[in-house]
Formats: sequence, structure tokens, C-alpha cells
Amino acid sequence: MPRLASRAERIRPFIVMDILDRAQRLEAQGRKIVHMEIGEPDFPTPAPIVAAGREALAEGVLPYTPAPGMESLRRAIAAHYLRRYGIALKHERIFVTPGASGAFLLALGLVLENGGRVLTADPGYPCNRNLIRLFGGEPVLVPVDAADNYHLTAEAVRRHWTPATAGVWITSPANPTGTVIDPDMLAAICCEVEARGGFLLSDEIYHGLEYGRRCISALEVCDDAFVVNSFSKYFGMTGWRLGWAVVPEPFIDAATRLAQNLFIAAPTHSQRAALAAFGEETALELERRRREFEARGRFLYHALVNLGFTLGPYPQGAFYLYADCSAFTGDSYRFAVALLEQAGVAITPGQDFGLNEAANHVRFAYTTSLENLQEGVSRIAACLRTVSQA
Amino acid sequence: MPRLASRAERIRPFIVMDILDRAQRLEAQGRKIVHMEIGEPDFPTPAPIVAAGREALAEGVLPYTPAPGMESLRRAIAAHYLRRYGIALKHERIFVTPGASGAFLLALGLVLENGGRVLTADPGYPCNRNLIRLFGGEPVLVPVDAADNYHLTAEAVRRHWTPATAGVWITSPANPTGTVIDPDMLAAICCEVEARGGFLLSDEIYHGLEYGRRCISALEVCDDAFVVNSFSKYFGMTGWRLGWAVVPEPFIDAATRLAQNLFIAAPTHSQRAALAAFGEETALELERRRREFEARGRFLYHALVNLGFTLGPYPQGAFYLYADCSAFTGDSYRFAVALLEQAGVAITPGQDFGLNEAANHVRFAYTTSLENLQEGVSRIAACLRTVSQA
Repeated sequence: MPRLASRAERIRPFIVMDILDRAQRLEAQGRKIVHMEIGEPDFPTPAPIVAAGREALAEGVLPYTPAPGMESLRRAIAAHYLRRYGIALKHERIFVTPGASGAFLLALGLVLENGGRVLTADPGYPCNRNLIRLFGGEPVLVPVDAADNYHLTAEAVRRHWTPATAGVWITSPANPTGTVIDPDMLAAICCEVEARGGFLLSDEIYHGLEYGRRCISALEVCDDAFVVNSFSKYFGMTGWRLGWAVVPEPFIDAATRLAQNLFIAAPTHSQRAALAAFGEETALELERRRREFEARGRFLYHALVNLGFTLGPYPQGAFYLYADCSAFTGDSYRFAVALLEQAGVAITPGQDFGLNEAANHVRFAYTTSLENLQEGVSRIAACLRTVSQA
Repeated sequence: MPRLASRAERIRPFIVMDILDRAQRLEAQGRKIVHMEIGEPDFPTPAPIVAAGREALAEGVLPYTPAPGMESLRRAIAAHYLRRYGIALKHERIFVTPGASGAFLLALGLVLENGGRVLTADPGYPCNRNLIRLFGGEPVLVPVDAADNYHLTAEAVRRHWTPATAGVWITSPANPTGTVIDPDMLAAICCEVEARGGFLLSDEIYHGLEYGRRCISALEVCDDAFVVNSFSKYFGMTGWRLGWAVVPEPFIDAATRLAQNLFIAAPTHSQRAALAAFGEETALELERRRREFEARGRFLYHALVNLGFTLGPYPQGAFYLYADCSAFTGDSYRFAVALLEQAGVAITPGQDFGLNEAANHVRFAYTTSLENLQEGVSRIAACLRTVSQA
């Protein structure tokens, strides 16, 4: 029997998978579980996008597209950058990929050497670190907290940079904290990275899901940034598996070759459908959803504070709140399991997101209706009363 | 500006892309080009599969599936192994992936250590080598020829194995030669690999497109093989981007974690559609197509021999013929360009497939109608007469 490669050995299971398994077992027993652990919007794909997909299928011929994607879709994405961010982008710099996952593989494959170290925020999304390791790189977990709005700072980049550092990975709006990076700070980080000849990878997959603070694209302050975005979250197309990467102009040829080898191309029907993602009707529907997420976030923030959790910044983006639960527990994993089993509420323990104060935090996702969130909060309240009376 | 990573630098462009570009320029000028360079079936996706896809879209909700794929599809694939190969396979060993590309990333990510060497046939499909390099491995190009039916042999595996060798990559039916490996030889290779604790990666993406010789799965002779297959070629689903990997049982957990990080999941609508790939109606249509490919291959084989090309084995599988063109040229790239520009026939020069006698070979794909193939052959005949008279 061949041996498991060390890179695969180092990928630890997501703890939330254990929570999900337990939740499904409880549901199989007939319990109703309130899901606040899921990082996927609860809205269906907007109707115009589905209609465009159905039209593509009706034609019945779905050959490979060119490796970087359909030219019409790349042009539509370029127009989106002009409209939304005021950036004129050559469509040749845009690579349509199988999900943001594919875009990260592409970007890291282009710039990350074996042994290269990449600065990332802790807490942060665990897949990011694992993808860095896949290419032989090493994630450097830089602790961030509410004082930094849970983002890397230029000062932190300076302090943690070593000769082995290859680049910086920014995710804004962030997962698990939902915070949006300050535009000036992003610009300052960009300067630090450029001065050192490193790469800036900007993960913008939650753009559009923003509540007050404008999300700027790294491309507004750093033309050489590698930007990853996706149709999954804001555009409601998770299962369609479609994202994109923007690469600096000198990387276009290499990105084309790498995309050919990594994927051949992104799904054709998904690309055809995504052409409808930028239309007026879709935009109105997405704005309606954005407001709904905003209302949920606002409700949940106050409700959790009232319950005795300590929360950081007010909801800024994405659909997550990262809550300090140290008033109740010193072990967020056991706390999450107890909430699930006693209250039937599923949340994600901080351990999934890094090492920094992980045992004192849990993530709440507001990817379920306001009614469900209210039900979840009531259940947690009752559960916490029981615990504190015990 | 950050530097291009060395792995990306080492991925050379496919020469056929240059041929395709030139062909498209000629077509833009109004020339009719006969395409015999394209590795994609010219048939649309079978109607029952499209119908199942449309049904999935009609429901409008396309969330992520579990990372290894929908359980129903994994079970359907397992049933396919029982029916087709007589192998009882736990569905948990089957991982549905974004195309075979994703399955290769998964398999290599599981077993290939940095610096590991992988034995592959030369000529062979160029992406395979590039994927090996992506994970820091080193492809070892083992020359094969008509005497070996263009496949690795157990003897060649013994001869080329060194302490740095990690495993063997077999592709059968092969690209660019269309040859099918002998079952006893595959079993013998498996023994060699197992005796050395290496991995056997069996690329079976052209299975089903077979003309006389039965394609056995590596799993029939080696339960520990990593097998990659796809819905693209035989099932006619290229643009849907759906494939699968079968991994040995001890790798199931690691493969699940790796798939979560590499892809999140394969496209949901494609998975739903693929459930119809194993039905009776689809099977009849695919058999009709198989016979059509067989007829084309037979025609093209004799026609090319008559033209003066030297051909290896009679068509066995896939939709490729690899022809020795040394009667006409010592530079297959210039020959391919001349055929395109003078005769309007696009083919792939051998240089895309390796180093072994590459300048003396070209690949013909019979992914176009018999009428087009006849037209192509007439054009080549006229062109060769002109050349030989000059």
C-alpha cells in the first residue's frame, strides 16, 4: 500500500464537520436543529441566472470553453469592475475558474514557491492555509483581534515579514469575523508587500454582502494584486461552482497555461448562466437579499450581546459573527457540542479558524431566516439559564 | 511585481494551441478548416442527461453537495463498476470531482511527495506531466513504441525504478496513440509497483471508447490502485466538468479532507445530470456513438496508410491515431503548419506528447464526421502530391 503524502496528512478535518454529523444524527432522530454553522446563503439562485442556465442546457451542446473562460463572461466581469469599483480592467486578466477554490489554486500556483511563507490572519478560513500547504508553502498565522478590526495591519506585515515570506493573504469581508478591511490599511499593506517584492492575494468572495462600510477591491490600491472572487456567495450560485481570479498583466500567459493544466476550463453551463448575474433584475433581487442579511446580522448581534457573549465590531460584511463565549466556557468545542445536544442549535467552534483565542470563540452564521435565528436565540437563552443554574 | 513561481514557468504551452490559433485566423478569413486536432467528442450530451440537468435547474436550488459527491451518484458509479467490470466497490471509495482534472489533483495530492518521480509513457498526454510537477514531483518519460503497443511494460517499470520513484501513471486507452493496455501487462505492472510500495495511478478516462480489445480497470488486478475516470469523453459531458477518482480504502478520510480543501465539491447540476448517464436509453445512444467512432477510426487508419503514413496498431480505443510522418518530413510541427495552411487540415504535432520520436509523428483525432474525415484525407492527399512534385 502506498503511503499518504505528508501534505495530505497535515490537513486536519474541519471540526464543524463533526458538529454537522452530530446535527444530522439528531435530525434523523426527529429533532429540529437550528443551523447557524453553515457558510452558504439560504437563498436559491436568482431566477434570471437559472433561466440563462436552462437556456444553455436547452441547446444541448456544452463543449469546453477556452481555459480562461468565455470571452463574453470575462468582458461582463470586467464591466462589473468598472461599474462597481471604477477600475478599467483588461478582460484578458480575468480567469474564470471552477469556484473560488480553483481561483486560489491558480493564483497560488502562479506565485508560491515551495517553502514560501504566506501571512494570514488568525482567526481565518481554514481552507486557505491548507491550499498554501498544498503547494509546499507555509501559512504564518498572525493573531488579529477586535482592536485591528480582525485584519492584518501594515505594521503586522512589517513585523512578521522574513526573507522566507512570499506574500500576504487578505480576506475581506473576513471569515469568521465578517469584518471589512479599512481602505487605507489595505493600501498601506499593499505598499509593504510591493516594497518587498512579495505578492498580495486578496480574497474578495464576500464582496457585495456589505453593510455600511464599502468593500474596496485590492485592485483599487494595487494593480499587481491577485484578486479572487466568486459567484457563490453574493450571486447565490454555490452549487454551480464558478469563481474568477484577476492576475497582473505579466502573468496572463502563465495563468492560461496553468488553467489548461489544472482544470481544462470552468463548467460551461455555469458560465452561460453567470452571464445573467450582472443584469438589472438580478441586481434588484441581490440588493433585497443583502438587506435581509443586514437585518439578520443586526438582530443577531444585539441578541448575542444580550445573552452575555462579547462581540467585536458591529456586522460589516459576509454573514458571520464571531463571538467571545468565555463568559460561559473555556472550551468552545465542548460549548458548541453542548448547545447542539441540549438546545438543538448548531454553531462552529473557534478551533476551526486558528489558534488565536480559539477556545474562547464561536462563529454564528446568519444564513437562515430571521424566524429561525429568533428560535435559535431563544433556545440558547434557555440553555444558558439551565447551565448557569446548575 | 512578484515573480512567477518556477513550477508555472516549467509548464510549456501546448503546441496545438498555436495550431488552433492559426486555424481560427484562417477561418476568420473564410477558409473551411477540417479539424482533426480536437480531443473532444463532436456529439452533444445525450438527451436523458441533459433532461436530468434541466430538471435539477427547474428546482432552482443548487447548494453544495458533500465534498465527495452526492451519495446517489457515488452509488450509481459503484453499480457501474459491478456491471461493467464485475468489481464490488464500496461507494465511499468513489470521489466525484470537477472533471478528471480534479480527480488527478486529488489522487496526486494524496500520494505524491515533493521530489517524487512518476513513470509515464512517452508519447503521452502533456497535462499529466504538468500536474505531477505542480505537486513538486518529477515525471519520468519512458519511451514506448509500437512493439510495446505504446504502453509501459513491467520490464520498463523495473528498469526505470529508482529509490526516488514514487509511482507509475498508466493511461489506457492511451492519448495520443489510442492503444489499450494488455490485461496481463497491467497486472504485471501492478505487481512491480506493489512490490516497491509505490502507487499505481490508472487514467481510464477513455474507457468505453474501445474497439475490440476490452479495457480492464486497474481495480480488477490491483485493489490499491488510484483510478481516475470522467463523464467527459464516453458519456459526452465535457463542458459539464465532472469526473471521479477511486481511492484505496485507507485513503478515504484523507481524500475527503483534501477534496473539501481543493474544490468544496463538484458542480451540483452536473452531478444531478450524471445520474442519468447510466440509464438504458443513454447506454443505447452511447453504443451507437461508439460504433460511429469505430467506423471513423477504421476508415482513417486505412486512408492514412494509403497516403504513406506509417501507423502502429489498428484502432483500439479513444479517438486518436498516432502516425509516423517521416516519409514526408523530419519536423512534424512544420508539417502540421503546412497541412493547415496549404490543405486546411488541422492536426497535432508529436512535440506536444513528449520527446520520443516526436518530430516524426502527428496525432489525428477522429472527433469529426466521416464526411469531414474523407474531405480531410482528400485534402491531405492533394497537398502531399503537390509537395512530392515540388
